[in-house]
Amino acid sequence: MRDVAIIGVGMKKFGELWEQSFRDLFVGAALEAIKDAGVDHIDSMYVGCMSSGLFVGQEHVGPLMADYLGMAPVPATRVESACASGGVAVRQGFIEVASGMSDLVLVGGVEKMTDVGGDEATYALATASDQEWEAFNGVTFPGLYAMMATAHMHKYGTTCEQLAAVAAKNHENGSRNPLAQFPMKITIADVLDSVMVADPLHILDCSPITDGAAAIILCPADLAKKLGKKAPVKIIGSGHATDTIAFHQRADLTALPAVSKSASIAYKMSGKTPKDIQLCEVHDCFTIAEIMVTEELGFVEKGKGGAAAEAGVTALGGKMPINTSGGLKSKGHPVGATGVAQMVEVTRQLRGESGERQVKGARVGMTQNMGGTGASSVVHIMEVM
Amino acid sequence: MRDVAIIGVGMKKFGELWEQSFRDLFVGAALEAIKDAGVDHIDSMYVGCMSSGLFVGQEHVGPLMADYLGMAPVPATRVESACASGGVAVRQGFIEVASGMSDLVLVGGVEKMTDVGGDEATYALATASDQEWEAFNGVTFPGLYAMMATAHMHKYGTTCEQLAAVAAKNHENGSRNPLAQFPMKITIADVLDSVMVADPLHILDCSPITDGAAAIILCPADLAKKLGKKAPVKIIGSGHATDTIAFHQRADLTALPAVSKSASIAYKMSGKTPKDIQLCEVHDCFTIAEIMVTEELGFVEKGKGGAAAEAGVTALGGKMPINTSGGLKSKGHPVGATGVAQMVEVTRQLRGESGERQVKGARVGMTQNMGGTGASSVVHIMEVM
Repeated sequence: MRDVAIIGVGMKKFGELWEQSFRDLFVGAALEAIKDAGVDHIDSMYVGCMSSGLFVGQEHVGPLMADYLGMAPVPATRVESACASGGVAVRQGFIEVASGMSDLVLVGGVEKMTDVGGDEATYALATASDQEWEAFNGVTFPGLYAMMATAHMHKYGTTCEQLAAVAAKNHENGSRNPLAQFPMKITIADVLDSVMVADPLHILDCSPITDGAAAIILCPADLAKKLGKKAPVKIIGSGHATDTIAFHQRADLTALPAVSKSASIAYKMSGKTPKDIQLCEVHDCFTIAEIMVTEELGFVEKGKGGAAAEAGVTALGGKMPINTSGGLKSKGHPVGATGVAQMVEVTRQLRGESGERQVKGARVGMTQNMGGTGASSVVHIMEVM
Repeated sequence: MRDVAIIGVGMKKFGELWEQSFRDLFVGAALEAIKDAGVDHIDSMYVGCMSSGLFVGQEHVGPLMADYLGMAPVPATRVESACASGGVAVRQGFIEVASGMSDLVLVGGVEKMTDVGGDEATYALATASDQEWEAFNGVTFPGLYAMMATAHMHKYGTTCEQLAAVAAKNHENGSRNPLAQFPMKITIADVLDSVMVADPLHILDCSPITDGAAAIILCPADLAKKLGKKAPVKIIGSGHATDTIAFHQRADLTALPAVSKSASIAYKMSGKTPKDIQLCEVHDCFTIAEIMVTEELGFVEKGKGGAAAEAGVTALGGKMPINTSGGLKSKGHPVGATGVAQMVEVTRQLRGESGERQVKGARVGMTQNMGGTGASSVVHIMEVM
């Protein structure tokens, strides 16, 4: 397998973008990545997208985006793994470059979620759970994560204040990210005072509904050196794992085995351990998710994720900065784009381009992108070349 | 890149299968392929599926199928390219094995189309066209292909009888396939007497709405030799190309440039020419599609596809047998499964296991799977090892 580098990144401000269509979002981010890479063509492309069928009545997303990007006839493949669609798309691009099949591969992620009403969006998102055993019976994603939070509180003593600390920390980071959908700072009290969505999750524990896209350009590491346009970043580890889709078949609601499995594969491939990672973008679709994921990735002891957030361990300037971008919570969560947006953030951090939220001296970073309640997880580890 | 072989195939009878769920369909075909390969595990899996969101309210299809197949935590990735989803899934599996990332990769395709009504199915299928310029304005897939047929008739003199000859030939083949949804024989007169759907396409020019799944097992060619269970078949060429998604941006409605492009890539990779191909499964979603595709693949001269079908050139026993399985027309067209089902047919033909429809002495075969009105096309060429 060939070594693979990231030579370009692109992302526009996330938000409720009624003036831009599904295809506009993708093309905007993709053109920025192509310009950033300084290349004049691509050989192949991937699009991570969760549910364009339900959100905008459009399937056949790969060719649509290749067409509007002016890149047809290159191969263009859409991949889907619910909210991990972007991360899985990155992995497919990584495999294609590593295989020798293609040199310049564009990987984009996109979702246009605000063209439908709230009920329709809630239904579309619920299709990431088990339709027959969960969604059909009326449970929504806030409801599912509320059950995980309750179990975590019961087993480990995690508190509402600790959940809220995650949200406050991510908004603090997001206030330094000009591309964030909700860049305002919030306090722990703001979260606790906000409306309850699914006990114990308040609305400020939940990531928002977002329109957005992000893109990166991959190529063989050798070619990246030759092109020499921007500080290239190497992908040194890629892990992908699955778990039971529904809760009723899991042994423990406080564990996310697909996350630990995908991380252990990526650690092994890269030769790194949790101690080597200097910053990580994790899948904080709800505050409890960030707490559980930081535990599964090995950054904190099992059950101590909430306390770590409260103590500032995961803040900018802390021992292990998590979600310097603002995370899904403040930056926004256009589901299919999220996994690619995480790669954009870590690449910019490793290039030293993150301005007010720069982690000083960062040379090794990680992303973790999750689908559903953890039935799929993708982890990537990157290092400055 | 490593050489890649097919060591197992699985497919159950296609049809209107109300007694089986979406996941049942996939698991049935996948278990058969695993048994056929004689392996006790897989390392990774792909699922080709077009629109499970609109057909059965389920996204996050990769982990769902890995879970119900008992294969979690292996990586499981769903790929979508409308009716070419299955072919694109095969290509992703091919790239993963070729790259060295995984040894045993399951590739399945599935669609459950009959749980919704006819209007909803027509809407779901229309999302393979351009939602903003085509579907939103009311055009359906029979309407789009009727425009292609009319253009082909105008430019080349293709007749309704020639279209009907394709349907009659495919049902003749399908009558020899125990897994076909509609195995009855039909005549040219039957087609011409059937109800008009979109002039000049009668209902018997159209492939049906189908539930079904198919699966194959891929591995490195070296490993296939070691396992030695079944006659392995090597994938010697893989081509994937895209085109404008909407008609209004195409120069010529009688051409399918993504088909010729994907074929030329696969021919080049394999070192074969159209004359070397002994049988081919093509994407006959409508009879005109088969005619146009046989032209683009180089089997007949441009404009002569209809005449070739009428003269029996593409029949079993003809110079270039097309759709020995019965094609989408008679075998059925569960959209995400079709590209994988084509691989199952060609593999069985190359193994000499096709009974009454066996092409004698077949050693080289091809599949062509198409999305939308030709905005995506995937071609694979296989040879007996």
